[in-house]
Amino acid sequence: MGIVLGPNRYGKAETRVVRVTRDGDTHHIKDLNVSVSLSGQMEDVHLTGDNAAILPTDSQKNTVYAFAKKHGIGEIEEFALLLARHFVDETPTISHARVEIEEYGWSRIPGKSGHSFVRSGTEVRTALVHSDGTGGTGTGGTGNGESVISGLKDLVVLNSTGSEFHGFVQDEYTTLQPTTDRVLATAVTAQWRHRGVDAEFAKSFAEARRCLLEAFAETHSLSLQQTLYAMGRTVLETQHGICEIRLAMPNKHHFLVDLQPFGLENDNEVFFAADRPYGLIEGSVLADDAPDAPAAWT
Amino acid sequence: MGIVLGPNRYGKAETRVVRVTRDGDTHHIKDLNVSVSLSGQMEDVHLTGDNAAILPTDSQKNTVYAFAKKHGIGEIEEFALLLARHFVDETPTISHARVEIEEYGWSRIPGKSGHSFVRSGTEVRTALVHSDGTGGTGTGGTGNGESVISGLKDLVVLNSTGSEFHGFVQDEYTTLQPTTDRVLATAVTAQWRHRGVDAEFAKSFAEARRCLLEAFAETHSLSLQQTLYAMGRTVLETQHGICEIRLAMPNKHHFLVDLQPFGLENDNEVFFAADRPYGLIEGSVLADDAPDAPAAWT
Amino acid sequence: MGIVLGPNRYGKAETRVVRVTRDGDTHHIKDLNVSVSLSGQMEDVHLTGDNAAILPTDSQKNTVYAFAKKHGIGEIEEFALLLARHFVDETPTISHARVEIEEYGWSRIPGKSGHSFVRSGTEVRTALVHSDGTGGTGTGGTGNGESVISGLKDLVVLNSTGSEFHGFVQDEYTTLQPTTDRVLATAVTAQWRHRGVDAEFAKSFAEARRCLLEAFAETHSLSLQQTLYAMGRTVLETQHGICEIRLAMPNKHHFLVDLQPFGLENDNEVFFAADRPYGLIEGSVLADDAPDAPAAWT
Amino acid sequence: MGIVLGPNRYGKAETRVVRVTRDGDTHHIKDLNVSVSLSGQMEDVHLTGDNAAILPTDSQKNTVYAFAKKHGIGEIEEFALLLARHFVDETPTISHARVEIEEYGWSRIPGKSGHSFVRSGTEVRTALVHSDGTGGTGTGGTGNGESVISGLKDLVVLNSTGSEFHGFVQDEYTTLQPTTDRVLATAVTAQWRHRGVDAEFAKSFAEARRCLLEAFAETHSLSLQQTLYAMGRTVLETQHGICEIRLAMPNKHHFLVDLQPFGLENDNEVFFAADRPYGLIEGSVLADDAPDAPAAWT
Repeated sequence: MGIVLGPNRYGKAETRVVRVTRDGDTHHIKDLNVSVSLSGQMEDVHLTGDNAAILPTDSQKNTVYAFAKKHGIGEIEEFALLLARHFVDETPTISHARVEIEEYGWSRIPGKSGHSFVRSGTEVRTALVHSDGTGGTGTGGTGNGESVISGLKDLVVLNSTGSEFHGFVQDEYTTLQPTTDRVLATAVTAQWRHRGVDAEFAKSFAEARRCLLEAFAETHSLSLQQTLYAMGRTVLETQHGICEIRLAMPNKHHFLVDLQPFGLENDNEVFFAADRPYGLIEGSVLADDAPDAPAAWT
Repeated sequence: MGIVLGPNRYGKAETRVVRVTRDGDTHHIKDLNVSVSLSGQMEDVHLTGDNAAILPTDSQKNTVYAFAKKHGIGEIEEFALLLARHFVDETPTISHARVEIEEYGWSRIPGKSGHSFVRSGTEVRTALVHSDGTGGTGTGGTGNGESVISGLKDLVVLNSTGSEFHGFVQDEYTTLQPTTDRVLATAVTAQWRHRGVDAEFAKSFAEARRCLLEAFAETHSLSLQQTLYAMGRTVLETQHGICEIRLAMPNKHHFLVDLQPFGLENDNEVFFAADRPYGLIEGSVLADDAPDAPAAWT
Repeated sequence: MGIVLGPNRYGKAETRVVRVTRDGDTHHIKDLNVSVSLSGQMEDVHLTGDNAAILPTDSQKNTVYAFAKKHGIGEIEEFALLLARHFVDETPTISHARVEIEEYGWSRIPGKSGHSFVRSGTEVRTALVHSDGTGGTGTGGTGNGESVISGLKDLVVLNSTGSEFHGFVQDEYTTLQPTTDRVLATAVTAQWRHRGVDAEFAKSFAEARRCLLEAFAETHSLSLQQTLYAMGRTVLETQHGICEIRLAMPNKHHFLVDLQPFGLENDNEVFFAADRPYGLIEGSVLADDAPDAPAAWT
Repeated sequence: MGIVLGPNRYGKAETRVVRVTRDGDTHHIKDLNVSVSLSGQMEDVHLTGDNAAILPTDSQKNTVYAFAKKHGIGEIEEFALLLARHFVDETPTISHARVEIEEYGWSRIPGKSGHSFVRSGTEVRTALVHSDGTGGTGTGGTGNGESVISGLKDLVVLNSTGSEFHGFVQDEYTTLQPTTDRVLATAVTAQWRHRGVDAEFAKSFAEARRCLLEAFAETHSLSLQQTLYAMGRTVLETQHGICEIRLAMPNKHHFLVDLQPFGLENDNEVFFAADRPYGLIEGSVLADDAPDAPAAWT
């Protein structure tokens, strides 16, 4: 039996960059968390510690900051692509780059100051980009070796009615009572894959987010899976540049509290919001002509 | 030398209750985290394990749920007072109750559904109430033995300019360069003490929050202490029912990145948002006629 | 374009179970966090909300507790296999089960009590099992459709010397200075795949953990990749039942503090332990005859 | 009504310092998290932003690092005292310093390497020191204006039997059943105040910790309060240099799972470890001749 090096990657994770842009007295800010992972000719560094192929993770961090200055920060998908292509194009030993970005939202504080902001929402916008350089900046191609996934996480939503759960399998360990009215709450993690790498990401994000919220609110739910699928389907139906969406939705249980011992009825009014355990529903929705790209998600 | 029992308290912490109220098809929700602490005749339970004076923490939890049904949940200060007075009034062995509540904000999801919500903001509204029962429901008094503190936490704000820091002490360990333009960012924790226990808490909260944001945005800052004081002063000046405010504001450092090695200038455009260490500024602002009530804060 | 359901799974996550076993006055405890994910005939539930194929996540939780009683809890790999096979064997609509377990360690408190324990270590032992039922309890086979991965996470280790980093790529964004002596610290996440499903998991775990620590300590490191590979290789060389190991090791930077402004030398004595950003090194080490099983890791 | 500045303090929080000391090939490490808070002539900085009295928090951080080099790091109480006295003695505008330290434990990795360590335990050792300078280095006095509190947190312990709970108050919201055998689990936070500032802190800490564990294990508990008091009393009885101890102990509920629906008995064998809500028991135990020092704890 021999022992060999398997798949590997390395990079600088969680570089926190805040970029201020001025438009006279009106400022704009972008607040990102950037994680880079590179792969390529990595045999030597693993087997002998020879770093000749290694671009230091410190240099990767510097690149994030320098690019924030040189190119500004537009949509995070574009910034991720810029970075990913740079690492592959400029470092001969690197053949593949993965760049993941989280963006935190800020709103303006009402008033006269154009430079004052307050963090908005618990929700985080995300991007995940892969590049092997073949879709390089000049080509504008669909990027055989490139992929762009947009998304969001920690979008916490709740329906206080309009959710049922019944007709399920009854085995010897089933004690759950069916219900025709329950609270449905979840923290949505969604990631959607674009067909190309040149989408209008700002518009696409706003639309996808709107679809997710709308489908969550307007689906009369018989199961969280049904809601999940409806959310994904709505995005694909309205956003033709998106070919696949993956959703992970914990069922954040809100248990009806038994108030009968206190002589009180509880007509779906008082709930205990539990922490653990929780249901976890994960699923993907696909256009049937979606090109295969499993590596885009890793 | 003898050994004696000192100050003590016990209770149920972090009871998570969600209350739904229906107005036809339009639902309203309140989402709270309630922590109760009781004290009183506690010698025996500590010295011998005799629980005759102990109202179980489980019963306290039940009370939170039952009260959510019976009384509904209005402003959290009022719900905390109801609970605190109940424990003192109804349990002979309990002479003092402390109730602390966190409230999480929800907004409606736009659209036709009246029962769909999305978590809004990272910020949490808080209340801290003490009662020894003497201000009981009927009296409406200022409550010698009662106190109400309102507040908020995790209100994350940032000024991208309008902040300076210079003229400080230079000792042998000082290497910091003075600056006339820096990013000022913090996560505000604020607690304000009411003169009475019958304030209009919803209005008072909205106004205090507005004052905090406005003063943060509009103070040209020479130090975070100056900003903190301005924020507190603005609340006291406009809200005469509030006699004291305490603020804790971490200086969430945003360090200017040195881009000179890459031939780039950084004119307050690109920042590294650091985690630790951070400055921590804590201070209180008082009306000079504020009644003494240190125990209100514990 | 049509829209179709893609890969999906659902289950109960993070069921926290503590199992006490008595041997006279001497008690033993097992403290687990169990997450179940099932897949199978899931079209209907997604498309129409028909739950006829759905074993409720609540029943899955009940099963964890009932099995803890009926079968006791031995090694977590075995408990995970028992659960996974049960769900596939007993629920006709379920064709695949994934069970993930975290185990928290406890030590005895020294003294006479046989029932008193203290949490030991920050480290968590893990298991990840897949089953499609074909390796059922009776067969003892290698389990075509079954796989067992053991592991650990949050094993935090540090070498205060014996680590160098130099000879790396210099690009226009490289400012890092080479070093021949640095602190190397990481929090190891390791997962190793067994060739079969009948290993001696307790012994195998103890040996793998010992190998990881030993290789970390005794590798004179020229790069974190070299250390990672040495750790993986040592496990594979000594544990022939293991055919693949994956490691994720953040480079928890300890930066040498510049004390020259204070007239002090810092001969690798005083370090700033940084939070973010951090390097992240991920890699796998394989036996060259390792059977292919990418799905085992998902 | 006038508005005035109330109590305030400021400083650098969470400076993470790792100190390596070499004894030939055998290294020793100290891993601390240091938080400094200063107070003094702070009117101007709050009212006008004049920083003439302000020692920058950045200088405080530098001081921590420089002192780690110059003085080494012995017991954290001593290091905290050194720092606190320095700030008060050397900065004319500062009249009071508070230094809080967390220490993370490391063990040696078995083997030949003298420089390899693994993080041990979830538990954190703590110190909290106040100084107004009057107990200065030379005097060795009891330090009227100085106080030293030692402690620990996140010491997670569990008794799988030997705990009862009955005989409690029954009110209209009480549904809890009395029990003569339950699991008792908690995460101990303990802080103890020394009579002087010159104790043998290493020995004292080891003894206090041993007492806490022993009393937890060997108290047959009728209530968590009884256990808490026994733990505190044991420390005070054996450590005469300690005059007060404060304990906060969440009751980490382990609920017996009802297995009857599955035809199984549960004779205190299978438990659900709940997250929230939890009981919270807080209490102090005092020597009856303990000098008054409430400010020591703030």
